[in-house]
Amino acid sequence: MALIVMKFGGTSVGSVEKIKNVAQIVSNVKNEGNDVVVAVSAMAGETDKLVGLVSEIAPTANPREYDQVVATGEQVTIGLLALALQQIGIDAISYCGWQMGMITDSAHSKARIEEIRAERVHASLKEGKVVVVAGFQGITQDTQDVATLGRGGSDTTAVAVAVGLKADRCDIYTDVDGVYTTDPRIVPEARRLPVVSYDEMLEMASMGAKVLQTRSVEFAKKYNMPVRVRSTFKLDDEGTLVTSEEDTNMEKVMISGIAYNKNEAKITLTRINDKPGLASTIFSAIAQKNVNVDVIIQNISPRGDGQTDLSFTVPKNEVHKALEALESLKSSQQIGDILVDEKVAKVSIIGAGMQSHAGVAAKMFTALANEGINIMMISTSEIKISCVIAEKYTELAVRALHEAFELEKE
Amino acid sequence: MALIVMKFGGTSVGSVEKIKNVAQIVSNVKNEGNDVVVAVSAMAGETDKLVGLVSEIAPTANPREYDQVVATGEQVTIGLLALALQQIGIDAISYCGWQMGMITDSAHSKARIEEIRAERVHASLKEGKVVVVAGFQGITQDTQDVATLGRGGSDTTAVAVAVGLKADRCDIYTDVDGVYTTDPRIVPEARRLPVVSYDEMLEMASMGAKVLQTRSVEFAKKYNMPVRVRSTFKLDDEGTLVTSEEDTNMEKVMISGIAYNKNEAKITLTRINDKPGLASTIFSAIAQKNVNVDVIIQNISPRGDGQTDLSFTVPKNEVHKALEALESLKSSQQIGDILVDEKVAKVSIIGAGMQSHAGVAAKMFTALANEGINIMMISTSEIKISCVIAEKYTELAVRALHEAFELEKE
Repeated sequence: MALIVMKFGGTSVGSVEKIKNVAQIVSNVKNEGNDVVVAVSAMAGETDKLVGLVSEIAPTANPREYDQVVATGEQVTIGLLALALQQIGIDAISYCGWQMGMITDSAHSKARIEEIRAERVHASLKEGKVVVVAGFQGITQDTQDVATLGRGGSDTTAVAVAVGLKADRCDIYTDVDGVYTTDPRIVPEARRLPVVSYDEMLEMASMGAKVLQTRSVEFAKKYNMPVRVRSTFKLDDEGTLVTSEEDTNMEKVMISGIAYNKNEAKITLTRINDKPGLASTIFSAIAQKNVNVDVIIQNISPRGDGQTDLSFTVPKNEVHKALEALESLKSSQQIGDILVDEKVAKVSIIGAGMQSHAGVAAKMFTALANEGINIMMISTSEIKISCVIAEKYTELAVRALHEAFELEKE
Repeated sequence: MALIVMKFGGTSVGSVEKIKNVAQIVSNVKNEGNDVVVAVSAMAGETDKLVGLVSEIAPTANPREYDQVVATGEQVTIGLLALALQQIGIDAISYCGWQMGMITDSAHSKARIEEIRAERVHASLKEGKVVVVAGFQGITQDTQDVATLGRGGSDTTAVAVAVGLKADRCDIYTDVDGVYTTDPRIVPEARRLPVVSYDEMLEMASMGAKVLQTRSVEFAKKYNMPVRVRSTFKLDDEGTLVTSEEDTNMEKVMISGIAYNKNEAKITLTRINDKPGLASTIFSAIAQKNVNVDVIIQNISPRGDGQTDLSFTVPKNEVHKALEALESLKSSQQIGDILVDEKVAKVSIIGAGMQSHAGVAAKMFTALANEGINIMMISTSEIKISCVIAEKYTELAVRALHEAFELEKE
């Protein structure tokens, strides 16, 4: 007998019929002899509706009251799912964040979990009950206020609950059936991975693969909690297991997946003085505007004149904030022209196995070159190589890389 | 400076615009220098929507989970109203039942208030905040579960909060502008009463005048909390003050209002043995079915044969339950025929002043007789005289009584 935490997102509980379907899935797992805790999101559309009401009244809402309103979406779902379970003969009880002991800090609407005081949950499990908990919410330590973990915090709740309860596994049910080698809409041959490591999943998530929230994967990695991503609609299917590198038998696989991201823009600063401290000045100014900088490239002075060019990428919707930060540097003549290119994309190969394989980068560059795709910027991490290219080549690049690394083969 | 509890029902907070209007009303009272606590219902329609979801999933829902779901309606409103207040510069904070210390028993969906631990509310008031509390809900003493007070429990919450906080007054804002001498739809000359006593209000409420919930009036009476009924839409208007008899200057006014009720049916049992104990047998059997009996009339044996007739009224929708209870008595020949008349109505005159005035009943019967209305049953209390008549005469009777007692005059 295992203790399993199951998580269902808003689409999976988006109607009465779907809630009944989820109850059936939960009852199957329970009837196999497991202890079960279920974390659920608000019914699809409900959170948006509540956020809409809030912003109609207060465009910049007090976050405590925002949370008070928005947290009700999950409270509705937990009650309904507990009832649906009871209807099919499964003893069940629902707990809101404050009832399940989900203690957070006071950063309303993006609160971080501090502790789980799970006495009530444990007691209910001991009574043989399925415990249904509200995703996305907790209670602040100091003031006993309702706090939400921010949009999409339900995955994180589920993993945190699994960690807090020392569960054997956390199963995230979603509308995709696992993690793929790349976006199947671009590469029909994309293959579902039976297993990926936390780090690979993080790199994929940060590149826009929306299977799991980044934060939930970080949490799972930190506490080494195995997470299974599986489909609400294909129950026989094992999905993809996200787990530690040691458990993934990684030496055999070099590259696990190809990711891409069209949401970044490239900013190039020309003729900046190549002297210590200027990069610090530039990126401090940008950081003060809360802009996330990703790839950064600085060449050595190409003209031998003590001046250089500096390029970096930022999210497209933060370009204007970055430019605000750079304007003052320009007027004080610390930098020359500012060039913005929004028609770029970032294509990445991801794989824990590349650490022990030589020639991976060369193979990537060759595959892109064979298609005539120019590489504007390159950045690497231990398990990822990213190239910034012209946006129009994105799909071509993804297909070429998928083929070059033979990801369609098991 | 006074401490005032204000209550707004679902219609008054039924949209974003209406919530903003309520915020304006609250800010006026706050800016006059008062401490203010506001109790609100769910937005009109929301509770029905939630109840609908619950019953789609579980027609006979576990009441704990029912409460978990249904209580969210008020939680949304309190957050939105707090935000609307903040938008117009009023410092405000919202509290759910469990946050405001509204402790109830465990009778889910019809819980009774046991205690109010109002430390948080007091602390917030001391900080100069307007406190917005959720009507209709609390937290169970034993299990820390969400409990609702039953449909319409918001009036009771407001009065209980007022009592718990030792407020100076509880203002119930509603879509009518006070308590009238009778239903203005029947008697256009009906006059709004500036003041009524708790007992009169109770008699009126029990007769179907839906201005205040019976339970909230009982609560107010028990703790002598003055309640003002006033309109959300006519702010200059003082409405009607419901208060203790001593404060109403009642000796001057004999009759305060005329009430009517078309929801009762008359049941007559013929040829029952006029011996001790049979009435007890009959009404015990009916009580076991949870049927509320109202007027009861037993004549002395009209035929001098030791047998009598017994008539009583029950709510129309409980007639079938009453008949079930009576069937067994009939088959054991303890009673004769059972006659049901659903086409009856009860018309009442209500007034604390009738205690010290003679001739009130005679005046009532004369007024009805003058219109050719036959009286089927009569019952009296200290401050009320009710007559059961044929339903078709209801409006005629109400108008005749309103005129006879000159209620249109101040």
